[in-house]
Amino acid sequence: MISIRPVDGLAEIGEGDLLGRLLAEAAAPVAGEILVVSQKVVSKAEGRIRHLDGVQPGAQALDLGERLKKDPRVVQLVLDESTEVVRAERNVLITRTRHGFVCANAGIDASNTADTESVILLPLDSDASAQRLRAEIAQVCGVSPGVIVADSFGRAWRTGQADVAIGCAGVAPLDDWRGHSDRDGRELAATAIATADELASAASLARDKASGQPAAVISGCERFLTADDGPGIAPLLRPAAEDLFR
Amino acid sequence: MISIRPVDGLAEIGEGDLLGRLLAEAAAPVAGEILVVSQKVVSKAEGRIRHLDGVQPGAQALDLGERLKKDPRVVQLVLDESTEVVRAERNVLITRTRHGFVCANAGIDASNTADTESVILLPLDSDASAQRLRAEIAQVCGVSPGVIVADSFGRAWRTGQADVAIGCAGVAPLDDWRGHSDRDGRELAATAIATADELASAASLARDKASGQPAAVISGCERFLTADDGPGIAPLLRPAAEDLFR
Repeated sequence: MISIRPVDGLAEIGEGDLLGRLLAEAAAPVAGEILVVSQKVVSKAEGRIRHLDGVQPGAQALDLGERLKKDPRVVQLVLDESTEVVRAERNVLITRTRHGFVCANAGIDASNTADTESVILLPLDSDASAQRLRAEIAQVCGVSPGVIVADSFGRAWRTGQADVAIGCAGVAPLDDWRGHSDRDGRELAATAIATADELASAASLARDKASGQPAAVISGCERFLTADDGPGIAPLLRPAAEDLFR
Repeated sequence: MISIRPVDGLAEIGEGDLLGRLLAEAAAPVAGEILVVSQKVVSKAEGRIRHLDGVQPGAQALDLGERLKKDPRVVQLVLDESTEVVRAERNVLITRTRHGFVCANAGIDASNTADTESVILLPLDSDASAQRLRAEIAQVCGVSPGVIVADSFGRAWRTGQADVAIGCAGVAPLDDWRGHSDRDGRELAATAIATADELASAASLARDKASGQPAAVISGCERFLTADDGPGIAPLLRPAAEDLFR
C-alpha cells in the first residue's frame, strides 16, 4: 500500500530560504518516506530567476524568436541553458539542457507576461539540490528521506505534460528487472522501470498546483530507497549518442 | 491524500475469462476509486495471443528482422498492428499502432523465447476494453469505478519504461489548466496534465510485477472521474500531423 500526502503550509519561497528546513517542518517526513518537491520552489530558493530586461538576445535568439513567436530574450536564456537545439518548429523549441534533459524551452517557465518580466530557470545541478534538501531535512527530522526534484515535461507523442524526476538523492531512479521472469517463466517485458519518474508522476496527482502545494510525501515505497545519496538522475538519461530522435 | 493498493489473488487469466468480474471480486473497488489494470491480462482475457508458428513474415518483415536482429514473425505481427514505422535502427523498432500509440514493437511483448513461441498483442480497442471492465465491475460492485488499461512504454530521451494509459473509461485523461494562474498571478506552466498517464505510473509503483499483481486501486482521486465513460484515451494522443519526431 502506497500513500501520498500533499505538503501544505509553506510560505512563498525566495532566494536564500532554507528550503530543506522549511519542507522538513511542513512535511515532517518519517523514515522510509520520499519527498517529491517541485522544481519551481527549488529554483526560487536557489535564486534561479532571471529578469528579462537584463538579457541581450543574440542573432540566433532573434531569429528563433521571430520564427517561433517567442520572446527573443527568453530564447537567449534557453540557448544559454542548452547544449543542442533538438527541434525548433511550429512555435516549439526543444533543446538538450546542460544537465542532459531533452525538453521544451530548457525547462524555463516561458509563460511570463508583460507584468511578470522574469522567468525561472532549472536548478544548475538538480541532483545537488536534492542532496542538499536531503541533508537539511535530516538535520531537522533525524531521518534522511528520499528526495526527488520534479518538473512537468511534455512528451514527443502524447499530449499533456507528466511530472518526471530531474534530480534525486536517496532514491534508486531505475528499477532494473533484466533477467527476472514473470510467473509464466516469460522474461519480463519492462526490463527497467523508471521508478523516479513514476514517483514524480504519482506525487503530481496529490498536489494542487493552483493552491501552491509545492511538494508531496510518498510512503510505502521503501524498496526504492538507497542508504546514501545514490546515483542521482543520470541512469534515467539516454545518452545523446543513443538518441534516435535528434 | 491518495492511496494505492495492489490487487492480489487473481488466478491466471485465459481467453474468455470475465476479467471485470474477477477484478471486481479481488479488488472490491468502492465509489470514487480508480482501477488500473495491466494491458497484459486484458489482452489475455481477450485472446490477443498469437502463436508464432502460424505467422508468415513478408519481405519487409524479413528485411527488418535481419537488420534489427528480431524474429521476423514478431516483426510481421508488429507491422500488422501498425500504420507507420517511425524508427527502425539500432535493434529498435518503433511504430505508430492502429490505436495511434507510438511505441516499441507496437506494444507487443517481444521477449518470447524458444520455449514460449507466442506473443501478446495490445487489445484491439483498449478504450472499449476499459468500458467493458467498468460495466462488468458495476454489475458486481454496484459502483462504476474509473478504469485505466496501462502498459509500460519507453521514452524517446529517457531510459527505463514508465506506465502510461492505453485506454480508459470513467476517467478524464487530461486535466486542463489553461487559463488558470498560480498564486503569483503567473499563468501555470503545465497547461494540461496527462492525468491518466500519471495515474498509470502511480499504480505501477504499487504492483509487484514478478508476483503477478495485474492491477492496483487508487483512492483519493475522485476529481479525475467522469460520470459516464468519458472521452477515452484520444485526448492524450498527439495527432501524427503535429508530431515533430516522425
